Amino acid sequence: MAEVEADVAVVGAGLAGLTAARALRRAGASVAVLEARDRVGGRTLNHDLGDGKIVEVGGQWVGPTQHRLLGLARELGVGTFPTYGAGENVIEWNGELRRYKGTIPRINAAVLADVAQAQWRLDRMAREVPLDAPWQAPKAARWDAQTLESWLRGNLASRAARTLFEIGTEAVWAQEPGDLSLLHVLFYAHSAGGFDALFDTEGGAQQDRFVGGSQLLSLRLAQELGEAVHLQAPVRAIRHADGEVALQADGVTARARRAILAIPPTLCARIAYDPPLPGHRDQLTQRMPQGTVAKCMAIYDEPFWRDQGLSGQSTGVRGPVRLTYDNSPPDGSPGVLLGFLEGRFARQAGLMESQERRQAVIDTFARLFGPRAASPRDYVERLWAEEEWTRGCYGCAMPTGAWTEFGSALRAPIGPLHWAGAETATVWSGYMDGAVQSGDRAAAEALASLG
Amino acid sequence: MAEVEADVAVVGAGLAGLTAARALRRAGASVAVLEARDRVGGRTLNHDLGDGKIVEVGGQWVGPTQHRLLGLARELGVGTFPTYGAGENVIEWNGELRRYKGTIPRINAAVLADVAQAQWRLDRMAREVPLDAPWQAPKAARWDAQTLESWLRGNLASRAARTLFEIGTEAVWAQEPGDLSLLHVLFYAHSAGGFDALFDTEGGAQQDRFVGGSQLLSLRLAQELGEAVHLQAPVRAIRHADGEVALQADGVTARARRAILAIPPTLCARIAYDPPLPGHRDQLTQRMPQGTVAKCMAIYDEPFWRDQGLSGQSTGVRGPVRLTYDNSPPDGSPGVLLGFLEGRFARQAGLMESQERRQAVIDTFARLFGPRAASPRDYVERLWAEEEWTRGCYGCAMPTGAWTEFGSALRAPIGPLHWAGAETATVWSGYMDGAVQSGDRAAAEALASLG
Repeated sequence: MAEVEADVAVVGAGLAGLTAARALRRAGASVAVLEARDRVGGRTLNHDLGDGKIVEVGGQWVGPTQHRLLGLARELGVGTFPTYGAGENVIEWNGELRRYKGTIPRINAAVLADVAQAQWRLDRMAREVPLDAPWQAPKAARWDAQTLESWLRGNLASRAARTLFEIGTEAVWAQEPGDLSLLHVLFYAHSAGGFDALFDTEGGAQQDRFVGGSQLLSLRLAQELGEAVHLQAPVRAIRHADGEVALQADGVTARARRAILAIPPTLCARIAYDPPLPGHRDQLTQRMPQGTVAKCMAIYDEPFWRDQGLSGQSTGVRGPVRLTYDNSPPDGSPGVLLGFLEGRFARQAGLMESQERRQAVIDTFARLFGPRAASPRDYVERLWAEEEWTRGCYGCAMPTGAWTEFGSALRAPIGPLHWAGAETATVWSGYMDGAVQSGDRAAAEALASLG
Repeated sequence: MAEVEADVAVVGAGLAGLTAARALRRAGASVAVLEARDRVGGRTLNHDLGDGKIVEVGGQWVGPTQHRLLGLARELGVGTFPTYGAGENVIEWNGELRRYKGTIPRINAAVLADVAQAQWRLDRMAREVPLDAPWQAPKAARWDAQTLESWLRGNLASRAARTLFEIGTEAVWAQEPGDLSLLHVLFYAHSAGGFDALFDTEGGAQQDRFVGGSQLLSLRLAQELGEAVHLQAPVRAIRHADGEVALQADGVTARARRAILAIPPTLCARIAYDPPLPGHRDQLTQRMPQGTVAKCMAIYDEPFWRDQGLSGQSTGVRGPVRLTYDNSPPDGSPGVLLGFLEGRFARQAGLMESQERRQAVIDTFARLFGPRAASPRDYVERLWAEEEWTRGCYGCAMPTGAWTEFGSALRAPIGPLHWAGAETATVWSGYMDGAVQSGDRAAAEALASLG
């Protein structure tokens, strides 16, 4: 059993934990990072296609207002390139495929107007939610006692508009509108700068990709941290007292003056704390479920849809894949079609045999992009609910009642324990950018308390 | 490190686990029960008032249709006696106290009619929810995508009626109407035989008490099981394969052919499984938060309210205690006033210093029962969210989306692992009676699989 000592122990070597560790070390504090997996990067994970080509099976995009993430990438020498968007998008509508340019699909104008007025109202409401204390919004109690689904049923005229919002909800939260607190949805949109920022490719959260894959950020951070990062070291137990923390992980124990837990809140609950955490904090973590998503990619010799004037971006209303993207490497070789199974579709797909699931994905691709899509040369998928050390993606989404009743426990340190991770961010909550913010914030907290 | 072997290992020595263990042994199987605490009984817990007098700081009541629980009590020689109900009840209404007899308070008739029509409708809807598969109710998707609060806002005419429903919700689930899936509420009421059965003292779930305290059931079961029950043995890790389970607890390891986990679902998630559990099961347990309740009792030389013609049952609309009962021992000595802090009131009270909380409770008692209530000779409370091995009472209540998306994982065995506990019951889900049902059911499953 290895024993390490540091000023601050960091649990989790995702972007949040590694950012925190780097900030601490730069400020002169010693750190030990304990990571459960045999790799760093958390919810970012590169997949090698051969020939030095990379796709990500985890989080991958970066958008124009994600200044912390962009700044980190610049510092680490990781470049970006635009998500492929040339040509026309496709939407499957009333059983037929329709092509369109830009963000507004060619469907019934009344439906589009219905969606637009609802989004306008939601955006206006979202701006009333304080990012550091959503429970203090003037109508917090009312908004947190209803689901997004209830609001949509009361405020959308058409079923078709509800379907579009459902697809958007799945795309952003990997949950259904009925799973989500309206207050959480409003908070989340505000933290991203509005609903367009969440939904859009150009100008939004899906605008750009990282050259070499998003995991490269974590790999470079870890390289800088060197032997301070301990892999295959899941933390099982934490003893904590005033200014003293003892962490017991598989194969290593760490002693530190402070600890930063940079793992999903639902996983924080699975560590044995001594003394046990206050009920207010524990019950919060009982109410922070992770979303459900399978990220699926079919690999082709070339991105054949481009020759047909298609961007690869499509909306397959019937599912199970409801959103696709061209996820080919920067040079367009090989061709990669990316499809998401999200929310209820991911839950159903998670119960299938892998062969059946693959077929369901490929069938959707063929429906949307023609028979050539039916014969990929390879297929890659990742089901994040199955991952022991994540247990769901993209992140946590609050059910009703959690923010108003327990929100104040989200970031409040408990003795020497500090909380990081994308779920604790106030800006771009749930995104890589939020993870970086949370790491910097928790590091500053820990430093201040070290004196 | 002690090592034990048995046909079946049972995790948790509450009513569910002990019932399962007894059933298994009676069928000829050997058992090992691993209990985290230094006592048995789980969410039932006797408190000694001295002179052989007992009150319960956990679950205590039994109602007329709880046949499994009543049968177990008969077998174990534990008697029952009626909850004290002679005299008039009190309701605090528009700032004044009103006395009334029976279950219907003396308030505005329009409000009462409003409540009655809503309850009638909810009862009718509840009967459409299949107890073994709530997600198959004809309107399951619709009902599971909205909170009880949303339904009440759409179906109650008056704010006063909403307040009464809110108090009822807190009393049954220790959650707020906005915290709960409507489908869950309907399932739960159906599983108890209707809303009256949940709410009522006479004829309902609060009708009777156990002589010697409800924990006596578990104490006697454990006595029968003798050395098979291992205390202070929290299970940290479970390795499982086909027909083989290895459980690692503090101080003891157990090898068995099957295991029954009879602990709250949210705590099931905190054990390290090898191999890890399927995502469908894991994500269910991320969506099963425990309620929030503090059970508070003030002890007086005598139940002085009885001399004033009062039953001790009252509704304190302003809170923080919103429901009280006379919880004196069978002979009426000493006098015990029982008050519940539930849902949001329990969450607020959980953040108070204990002295402040005690004062808030006693102040409510004095408001409802006069100045003599202000000077108890003793005060007893238990905050169940603080309990490391329960983490909230009365039990789990599903947020929206959980039943329809994940419900099929609730009882489905995973290899040699079976699931018990009051949350897994189909009849009197969440109650002691449901715990007994779940223990018997899981034992039968395990026995059948042992062949």
